Amino acid sequence: MVDFKYYTPTEVVFGKDSESRLAEMVRKYGGNKVLIHYGGGSVVRSGLLDFVKSQLDAAGIPWVELGGVVPNPRLSLARKGIELCRKEGVDFLLAVGGGSVIDSTKVIGYGLNYDGDVWDIYDGKYAPKACTPLGVVLTIPAAGSEMSDSAVITKDEGMVKRGFSSNLCRPRFAIMNPVRTFTLPPYQTAAGVTDMMMHTMERYFSHEDDMLITDAVAEALMRTVKQCGEQVLADPENYQLRAQIMWAGSLAHNDLTGCGTVSDFATHGIEHELSATYGATHGAGLAAIWPHWAEYVLAENPTRFAQFAVNVLGVPNDFKSPERTARAGIAAMVDFYHRIGMPANLPELIGRPATEAEIAEMAFKATQGKKITLGNLKKLDYDDVVAIYRMANKA
Amino acid sequence: MVDFKYYTPTEVVFGKDSESRLAEMVRKYGGNKVLIHYGGGSVVRSGLLDFVKSQLDAAGIPWVELGGVVPNPRLSLARKGIELCRKEGVDFLLAVGGGSVIDSTKVIGYGLNYDGDVWDIYDGKYAPKACTPLGVVLTIPAAGSEMSDSAVITKDEGMVKRGFSSNLCRPRFAIMNPVRTFTLPPYQTAAGVTDMMMHTMERYFSHEDDMLITDAVAEALMRTVKQCGEQVLADPENYQLRAQIMWAGSLAHNDLTGCGTVSDFATHGIEHELSATYGATHGAGLAAIWPHWAEYVLAENPTRFAQFAVNVLGVPNDFKSPERTARAGIAAMVDFYHRIGMPANLPELIGRPATEAEIAEMAFKATQGKKITLGNLKKLDYDDVVAIYRMANKA
Repeated sequence: MVDFKYYTPTEVVFGKDSESRLAEMVRKYGGNKVLIHYGGGSVVRSGLLDFVKSQLDAAGIPWVELGGVVPNPRLSLARKGIELCRKEGVDFLLAVGGGSVIDSTKVIGYGLNYDGDVWDIYDGKYAPKACTPLGVVLTIPAAGSEMSDSAVITKDEGMVKRGFSSNLCRPRFAIMNPVRTFTLPPYQTAAGVTDMMMHTMERYFSHEDDMLITDAVAEALMRTVKQCGEQVLADPENYQLRAQIMWAGSLAHNDLTGCGTVSDFATHGIEHELSATYGATHGAGLAAIWPHWAEYVLAENPTRFAQFAVNVLGVPNDFKSPERTARAGIAAMVDFYHRIGMPANLPELIGRPATEAEIAEMAFKATQGKKITLGNLKKLDYDDVVAIYRMANKA
Repeated sequence: MVDFKYYTPTEVVFGKDSESRLAEMVRKYGGNKVLIHYGGGSVVRSGLLDFVKSQLDAAGIPWVELGGVVPNPRLSLARKGIELCRKEGVDFLLAVGGGSVIDSTKVIGYGLNYDGDVWDIYDGKYAPKACTPLGVVLTIPAAGSEMSDSAVITKDEGMVKRGFSSNLCRPRFAIMNPVRTFTLPPYQTAAGVTDMMMHTMERYFSHEDDMLITDAVAEALMRTVKQCGEQVLADPENYQLRAQIMWAGSLAHNDLTGCGTVSDFATHGIEHELSATYGATHGAGLAAIWPHWAEYVLAENPTRFAQFAVNVLGVPNDFKSPERTARAGIAAMVDFYHRIGMPANLPELIGRPATEAEIAEMAFKATQGKKITLGNLKKLDYDDVVAIYRMANKA
């Protein structure tokens, strides 16, 4: 195991009555004037946005609002948010939505504490010193951004998608009411389940496989998410199932499942280009890539993939061959993706094979112009990434 | 499942090199003048205390010191610490040791922010508004106080042991170096393992048994601690085993394993009187009580005890009878306690049976003069507590 740090200061308020504590939490963390940041659609239709506003109004906390966040959130809207907050003297940011809204909010928080262009942080030109405090009312369990140190944003020009991680942007509080997730469509539910499992898998597939506590917790989490993910699609208003999934999404990305391991995140890096190029839903893109990444890197640590197959997916252990067990695990994962309505290759994701030109460009962008490698279990260069896209391109 | 809050702001620095970051962490959390609080013996002999002082000296951070904390820490020493800190203008408290030292430090932190007697907090006469910031250099994995909201203290007059919980006292940082635990004697190692398993068990045995994620994480944690606890006694300088146990001790009591459950803690309440009366090591006292508590309350939720037996202890499931499976689990737990050198009843703990007069007095004090009940799975009154002490009194 490797030395590690663990820091998850986000105060979680979880349950049916959690939203009634919103104004109290904003006050507790110093909010005097609030930006309510959101997407559109469901938070408006469900009445949640009005409820949030009424809670702040009742507490006498002034607010301004900015909607319009889209999946794979854009830098242009975050810049607009920074400008609005400066003009209005906002000192607290409230994200009402899922990962895209939260990430956009974090970017606004960074931007408010920097005189230059906030993209400088994503370009490696500036290391942020502060982030305006933010809170979350979560509506989509998936990205785990409500407790994570991560913020991913897409620059509109050239659709360049980049991530940046720092403890500065961890939300001060996260309000989670599983009832709000009852109406999530099946595709979005399944993509969320895929994303949270992948957040744990990205930390699990490591050469460091002697951190028993972390392994046991990670396997417990993945098993439970898989089981509840299948069940909830047939029973979408089951509070218990929705609650498991919602809480698992936070635990999967607040670093708990990475204590003592070296995380990989190559699948995330390879997927980001699918979102940018085809507008793919992040979770669905991950499902289209992972089986092929797994096949490509399996030889690096076959017993690890065998352990995953047996302990997470319930595949019978072929004691004579970790490789065979490992491959049976990858096949079981493909089955699982299909059962929950996720794709398991590129044609299933985008409706046709990717062209060779697209593959070349995505691999070029994913490796920042052949300048970086992705992942740790196996460090993947441009040629490796091309090979994985090609493997994923077969139906 | 029940609604829950989850708040674990402690910044953990874990690993072989963690101690070198001490001064940096003290500065980060605003320490300008530090009280170094400790017990004696091992932290002096091992050179850790000198190392801590040298780190602060090198960073130009002034400090004063107060040693002498004993197991089941005393109010009298905490009062002395409060006086010393006031006189010296201390603004940051550093606990170097295990649970007793950390708890004593928390009591000092409360006392520094209250003009009256700090025992008022434990007597229910005053609700604290603040606690001076504190950090931890952990040397004994057991109590989990390094991330918990709990502080237990014993009033010297009458040896009254009480606990108080509040987020105010959660440590700002915890430095954990498993190497520091290599020299822990077997009895203390085993008592620590027992304590951390019990922190999870106190949250696990609940009528709320539909929080699947929490159950899965709790079972994973208990299984791993049990396995590593047995192995480490034969291999005390095994870094990997010591690391699992050290990290598990924090996770077992930072509330992670209680999300969505209703915790019990009757065994803790019943044990506290054994520590106060006989000077028993807390973990050993827990082992002497738990099997009898379990037997006494089993009928409240037999399937829960069966699940524990199968999923944590590896007992074969008797599908025709959860009760039989449950009882086999209690027997397996007794076996485990004996294997790691822990007692499983009162005569094994104190070398003789307790007298009826002692039992009556302990039950009286545990129920605060027959005024409160203990636990939630079954609410135990004075007569119940007497019955459990009597069951535990048979060798």
